Amino acid sequence: MPAFDDIAPLLAHLSVELPSRAFVAEPTGRRDPFAALADVARVHEATGLTPTAALDLPRDAVRDPGALRRHAADLGVSVGTVVCDSAREEHRGLAHPDPRVRRRARDHHFRCLDLLTEIGGHDLVVHLADGTHHPGQDDLRARQDRLVESLAALRERLTDDQRLVLRPWTADPALYQTDVPDWGTCFAHCAALGERAVVGLDSGQHAPGAPVESVVAQLLRLGKLGAFGLRPRPLADDDLIVGTADSSQLFRILHEIVRGGGHRPGGVALALDPCPVEPGVVGQVRSVLTVQEMTARALLVDREALDAAQRSGDVLGAHEIFMAAFHTDVRPWLADWRAHRGLPADPAAAASGHPGAGLGGTPARRGA
Amino acid sequence: MPAFDDIAPLLAHLSVELPSRAFVAEPTGRRDPFAALADVARVHEATGLTPTAALDLPRDAVRDPGALRRHAADLGVSVGTVVCDSAREEHRGLAHPDPRVRRRARDHHFRCLDLLTEIGGHDLVVHLADGTHHPGQDDLRARQDRLVESLAALRERLTDDQRLVLRPWTADPALYQTDVPDWGTCFAHCAALGERAVVGLDSGQHAPGAPVESVVAQLLRLGKLGAFGLRPRPLADDDLIVGTADSSQLFRILHEIVRGGGHRPGGVALALDPCPVEPGVVGQVRSVLTVQEMTARALLVDREALDAAQRSGDVLGAHEIFMAAFHTDVRPWLADWRAHRGLPADPAAAASGHPGAGLGGTPARRGA
Amino acid sequence: MPAFDDIAPLLAHLSVELPSRAFVAEPTGRRDPFAALADVARVHEATGLTPTAALDLPRDAVRDPGALRRHAADLGVSVGTVVCDSAREEHRGLAHPDPRVRRRARDHHFRCLDLLTEIGGHDLVVHLADGTHHPGQDDLRARQDRLVESLAALRERLTDDQRLVLRPWTADPALYQTDVPDWGTCFAHCAALGERAVVGLDSGQHAPGAPVESVVAQLLRLGKLGAFGLRPRPLADDDLIVGTADSSQLFRILHEIVRGGGHRPGGVALALDPCPVEPGVVGQVRSVLTVQEMTARALLVDREALDAAQRSGDVLGAHEIFMAAFHTDVRPWLADWRAHRGLPADPAAAASGHPGAGLGGTPARRGA
Amino acid sequence: MPAFDDIAPLLAHLSVELPSRAFVAEPTGRRDPFAALADVARVHEATGLTPTAALDLPRDAVRDPGALRRHAADLGVSVGTVVCDSAREEHRGLAHPDPRVRRRARDHHFRCLDLLTEIGGHDLVVHLADGTHHPGQDDLRARQDRLVESLAALRERLTDDQRLVLRPWTADPALYQTDVPDWGTCFAHCAALGERAVVGLDSGQHAPGAPVESVVAQLLRLGKLGAFGLRPRPLADDDLIVGTADSSQLFRILHEIVRGGGHRPGGVALALDPCPVEPGVVGQVRSVLTVQEMTARALLVDREALDAAQRSGDVLGAHEIFMAAFHTDVRPWLADWRAHRGLPADPAAAASGHPGAGLGGTPARRGA
Repeated sequence: MPAFDDIAPLLAHLSVELPSRAFVAEPTGRRDPFAALADVARVHEATGLTPTAALDLPRDAVRDPGALRRHAADLGVSVGTVVCDSAREEHRGLAHPDPRVRRRARDHHFRCLDLLTEIGGHDLVVHLADGTHHPGQDDLRARQDRLVESLAALRERLTDDQRLVLRPWTADPALYQTDVPDWGTCFAHCAALGERAVVGLDSGQHAPGAPVESVVAQLLRLGKLGAFGLRPRPLADDDLIVGTADSSQLFRILHEIVRGGGHRPGGVALALDPCPVEPGVVGQVRSVLTVQEMTARALLVDREALDAAQRSGDVLGAHEIFMAAFHTDVRPWLADWRAHRGLPADPAAAASGHPGAGLGGTPARRGA
Repeated sequence: MPAFDDIAPLLAHLSVELPSRAFVAEPTGRRDPFAALADVARVHEATGLTPTAALDLPRDAVRDPGALRRHAADLGVSVGTVVCDSAREEHRGLAHPDPRVRRRARDHHFRCLDLLTEIGGHDLVVHLADGTHHPGQDDLRARQDRLVESLAALRERLTDDQRLVLRPWTADPALYQTDVPDWGTCFAHCAALGERAVVGLDSGQHAPGAPVESVVAQLLRLGKLGAFGLRPRPLADDDLIVGTADSSQLFRILHEIVRGGGHRPGGVALALDPCPVEPGVVGQVRSVLTVQEMTARALLVDREALDAAQRSGDVLGAHEIFMAAFHTDVRPWLADWRAHRGLPADPAAAASGHPGAGLGGTPARRGA
Repeated sequence: MPAFDDIAPLLAHLSVELPSRAFVAEPTGRRDPFAALADVARVHEATGLTPTAALDLPRDAVRDPGALRRHAADLGVSVGTVVCDSAREEHRGLAHPDPRVRRRARDHHFRCLDLLTEIGGHDLVVHLADGTHHPGQDDLRARQDRLVESLAALRERLTDDQRLVLRPWTADPALYQTDVPDWGTCFAHCAALGERAVVGLDSGQHAPGAPVESVVAQLLRLGKLGAFGLRPRPLADDDLIVGTADSSQLFRILHEIVRGGGHRPGGVALALDPCPVEPGVVGQVRSVLTVQEMTARALLVDREALDAAQRSGDVLGAHEIFMAAFHTDVRPWLADWRAHRGLPADPAAAASGHPGAGLGGTPARRGA
Repeated sequence: MPAFDDIAPLLAHLSVELPSRAFVAEPTGRRDPFAALADVARVHEATGLTPTAALDLPRDAVRDPGALRRHAADLGVSVGTVVCDSAREEHRGLAHPDPRVRRRARDHHFRCLDLLTEIGGHDLVVHLADGTHHPGQDDLRARQDRLVESLAALRERLTDDQRLVLRPWTADPALYQTDVPDWGTCFAHCAALGERAVVGLDSGQHAPGAPVESVVAQLLRLGKLGAFGLRPRPLADDDLIVGTADSSQLFRILHEIVRGGGHRPGGVALALDPCPVEPGVVGQVRSVLTVQEMTARALLVDREALDAAQRSGDVLGAHEIFMAAFHTDVRPWLADWRAHRGLPADPAAAASGHPGAGLGGTPARRGA
C-alpha cells in the first residue's frame, strides 16, 4: 500500500463543487447568491476542498453578474457551473410538441448560459425534470428528436471553454416517463452533439444491480464523463449527507474516477447536491470530508500489486488488496494533513462558528 | 379507431422467433435440434406466427448443419438466429485478462458464427453471463477495452447479411458486476462497431422507473434496435409465459415497435425466451398468441386522432385514444382472423395434439 | 363468465373515498374544505361512486366542524376518514426520544381524532412521514416502543365505531429509515393494539417482486385490512391517475378484495390519493372510473369455473378463466349501467362543467 | 469508544453456522455429509468461530444419523440446524390444493425434523421455493390457510428444545407469487404458531428502501427473530462472499443484533449461505472473518456516549459516534486476538492447507 505521503500530492487535486441551493436556510428560499457564495468560501476556508460553486436559475438571478463574480473572487472562490433548473413549469419543455413552449424553455436555458459566461464558469448542467404524465400523451420518439434539436441549439452557443453537461432524471412521481431517464440516453445525445457535450452522472442513476462504478469506468473510457453528483444512497433522489449509508460504494466510484484520471483538474467535476436534512455549512462540510476520506482510501489502493494480482488471475488476492485500502482508517492521517495546511482541526465547527457543530474531531474521541 | 380489416395486413407482418431451448422437455436437456425445429414448425402451423427459430451453442451442435437446414426447410421454417450461450465457464471470457482465456471464448463465438452461416441465419446474439465476482478482481475499464476488441474480431467475420446483436445481462447473483449491464453499454459498443452491430433488448432490462418503451423508441430512433426478447415481467430473468403479469407494458412496447417501423420484415426481431414453467409447445403457443393480441391492440391505436390530440396539447384526450386501443377486446376478431386463414381455432390444442391444452378457446367460453 | 346483470348488484357496493387534498387547485393550497366537499359531491353526482371524503389536518381545520358536517349532508356526501398529516415537522415525533416532542405529536393526532368524531367519520389514518436521517441518530428499537405507546394512547380514545388505520411509509428521500416501513410493521403494531386497529395498504408498498395482491389476501385473511389506497404505479409515491400504467395489477388487487369480502360496506375502505398531475374533479373522475372498470372485471371472474379448475390442478385453465375476465371490454356495459341510473354519459365533462373534459365517451368513439 | 479488551468477552460469543452445501466441490453435488462436517471443523479450527453446521434434506440423507452425530462430536463440532430443502418438486406443496401433494410435502418436512432430532440439533428451517406460476392458478388466500395448517402439523411435532424457523422466499423467476414473500408473512404465521416458531431473516429480504436493520430491530423487539442468514448484498439471492459489497449494512445489522441481545447463546442463529463463487473452506473462512470484523466494530460502538447523544437530541453527534466504530480498522486487533488464542494468523491458508489461500494476512501487508 502506498504511504500516505505518496498520495498527498494526488489528494491535493481533490475539489468538490458546492451548490448555492445548499445554503438556503429559510423556508422562504429567498436568500441571495452573494450570501451563498460567502458560505461556500467559509466551507473552503475550513476544508481547503471547495473552491467552486454551482449557481442555478431562476433562483440565483442577479442584476449584475459581474459584481457577483468579483464578490466570489474577493472571497477566494469562483463559480464553476450553472444548473438550468426546471422545477418551474415555464422552464420545462425542450421536447414539447408546441413550438412556443419549446422556445420559452430554450430561452430559459439560453439565459442560464448567458449567466455562465458572465460569471466566468465553464459547465452548463442540463437536468430535465421533464417528460409525460400519461402513456400516449406525446410521441416518445418525436420528443427525443425535439430534445436533441433544443440541445443542439444550446450547444451551438457554447464558447470553446464551456461544456454542456447532460444529467439524467431517472424517475419522477409526477411523470409516467422522463425524457432523459438514464446514462444511455445522455451518452447517445452527447455523442451526437459532439466534443463539448458530456454526461453528468450521479450516484442515484443506475440499472438495478448494476454498480454505478461500472458506468463511471465506461464513460471515462468513452471520454464522456463530465461531472459526478455525489449522493448518499443509490436512490433517484436523496436529501442526506454523502456516505451516510453505503460508503463502500462511494469508495468504489472514487476509485474508478481516480483510475480513469478523472480526479485531475479539467476531469470529472465532483459536485454535491444540497442536503436539506442538514442545510447550511455543517451538512456540506461533513459530506465534503467524507468524500475526502473515501478519495484518500481510493488513492491508497496499491495499484502495482493490484495490477499484478489481476493479471495473474489471483482473484481473491486482488479483491483483498482493493478492500485493504477501504478498510484503512485514514482519519488520523487526514487530521495531520489538515494540521500541516493550517486548516482547522474541526472544520464543521470552524465553518459554522459553532464549536459543537463539528462534533469534537474524530481522532480525539477515539482515544477516549 | 381503425377497423380490424385495416390492420390485418400489418398484423400479417408479425413474426415471433422461438428458441430451440424452449422445447427441451426432459430434465437431461438432451434433445436434438431436429426435434426442436419440428416443434417450432408445429407452433407455426397452429398459429401462423413463428416461421423462424433461434439455436444456441453448445446445446444445438450438430455434425451436419446443412442437413438441419434442409430439415427446417422441409418443415416450412428456418433458423434466424444463433445465440452464443455462455452458461459454461469455458465459453465465457471475452474480456478476461488472460489472453488464452479470451481466445478460448472467442473461438466459441466464432463457432457460433460458423453455425449461423451454415444454417443460413442472419442474427448472432451475444449475451454474456460474464463479469467479476468481487470488487477489485479485475480492472473494470480494461475489461471493456478487451470486450470491444473481442466483439470487433467477431464483427469482422460477419457477412453482409448478418448482424451481431449485443444483448445486456443486467445482474447476476453470482457476479458483483456484469460486463454488459445495460442498454447504454450495448449502444456504446454497437455504435463503435458500426452498422452491422445492433442492440438486443428485452423487457427485463431497464433503469428503475424508466419504462422499457422509452428505450425501445430511443434505439429505433438511433437505428440500433435489432431484436427484442419478450419476457413476462420487468425482472432481469424470468421463466413465465409472456403477458402473464403486466400486459399493458407489452402493449406499450409493441406500440413503440410499430411506431418506429420495427414490425416490418428486417426490422426488430421479436423473440421469445424459453418458458421453463410451461415447457414445450403449449407455453410457446400461449406466449405467441398474447404477443399477437397486444400487437393487434397496438395497431388499433388511431394514429391520426392521436397525432392531432398530441399536437393540440389535449393531454388526457391523447391518453384516452391510446388506452382505448389497449382496452379493446380483440380476441373475437383474432378468432375470425384464424378461421379465415384456415388456422385452428385452438392453436395450443392443435400444436400439442391434446384437445384440452388450448383451454377451449376464449370466445366460445365468453358466451357461456 | 357471469352475465353483467349478475354482477350489477355487487358493483353497486363499490364506493371510493376522495381526499379533500385532491381539490386544491391554486398553488397557495389555501382552499377551504367546504369547497372541497362540494367537489366530492360533484364527482359523486357524476359517477355515483364517491359518497365519502377524507379530510386531513392541519389543512382542513375548521372552526365549526358541525357546520361542515351539515354542509356535507346537504350535498349528499359525508366524511369517512381523517388523515393525520405529518408533513410539517411539528406534527411528527410519535416515536421521538424527547417526551415533549412526543406529546406535541400526540396532541396533533388527538386533534385529528376530535375532528373525526365531530364530523361523524369512522377511520383515523395514521401515516407517518417520520423516522431518522442518519444511522445511529436514534435507537431503532426504542423508537418502536415509543411509537406503540403513542398509538396505544390514540387507540384508547377511539369510540366503538371508529378505527385506527396504520399506513406504511416505505421510503423517504429525506430519511435513512422510516418508522413504519412496511405492512409487516403495521400488522405487528395493529395486532398488539387489538381489534379496532387495522392496516391501510396502498399499491406502492411492497417487497420487490412480491405482488401486492398477496399482501391484500393475507391481511384480509388475518382480519386486518382496513383500507386500500389506490395508486397508479408500484412506486412508493405517485402523482398520476390510477390505472395509468399497470391496470392488470389493479385488477388482481381488486379481485383479492372482492374474493376476501372486502368490497362490502364496512370492509376495505378504498381511497384515492390526490393526483397533482390532473388536479380537481377531472383527474379524480377518471381514476374512479378506472377503479369501477377493474372492479367490474374482477366481478366477472367465473368463480365457480375458476374454483373447479384450481381444485382439479388445471393450472393453465384456471389462469385462462382468470384472465378472460381481465380482457373483457366492460366499457360498453358500464355506459349502459350509467344510462340506467340516470348518470351522465360523460362523467368528467358533467362534473367539471366542461364538455370536452370527459373526452367524448369511449364507446361512441369506438364506432368511429 | 470501548477498549478492545472490553469487547473481547462479547466477541467470544460470536458463532456462525456453516451450511454443508457450502462444501460441495464437485459438479455432481454428490459429497457426503461426513466430509462436509470435516470441512466445517477445519474452518472452526482455523477461526474459532464455526462450531455448528446446517444440514439439509434430501442432500444430506444418511443411513445412520447417530454415526454422523458421533463423527461431528469427534471433530469438535455439532449440527445445529436442518434445512428443509424444497428445490425438488416432490418436496414442495405445503399449500397445494391437492391433499395428496400436501401430504407428500409434509412427509418431507417430517423427515427433516426426524433427522434434526436424531442428529441433536435444535432449529428446523422451513424455506419454501413455492408459490404459483400464473395469476389465477390457485386461490391466494386458501393457500395461506393450507400453509398454516401444514406448519402447525410440523410445529406440533417439535420437542421443547426445538424451534421452527420460517424464512421468506421473496421472489423467484419461475413464480408469479411466492407463498412466504416477506418477513410480515413469516411473522404473522409464527405469531399464530406460538412460542417455538420464529422468523429467519436474511439480508436479501426487504421492502425497497427499508433498511434490513429496522426489521432486525423490530423482530428482536417482538421476540420473534430466530435466525439471520448473512448474504453479501441486498438481493433476493446471491452467491458471493459476505461483506463483498456493502459492509456498512452488515455493520448496522450486527449492531442491531448486538443491541437486541441476539448475539448471546440461544439468541439469533447467525448463518452463512453457500458461496458458489468461492466454494469450499476458503470462501467460508473469508465470509466468517468479515462477520467477525463487523461484529467487532458493532461492539466498539460507545453505547453510553451514543445513548447520551441520542437522548439529548444531538443528531449528528450520535451519528458520528456510531460511524466512528464502523470506520475503526479492527484488523490488527483481530490478528492479536487470533494470536492469543493460538489460532493461525492466516485462517484461510490454514483451513485449506494452501499457504496462498489466505492472501498473506492483512496487517502484514499494510506495513508494506
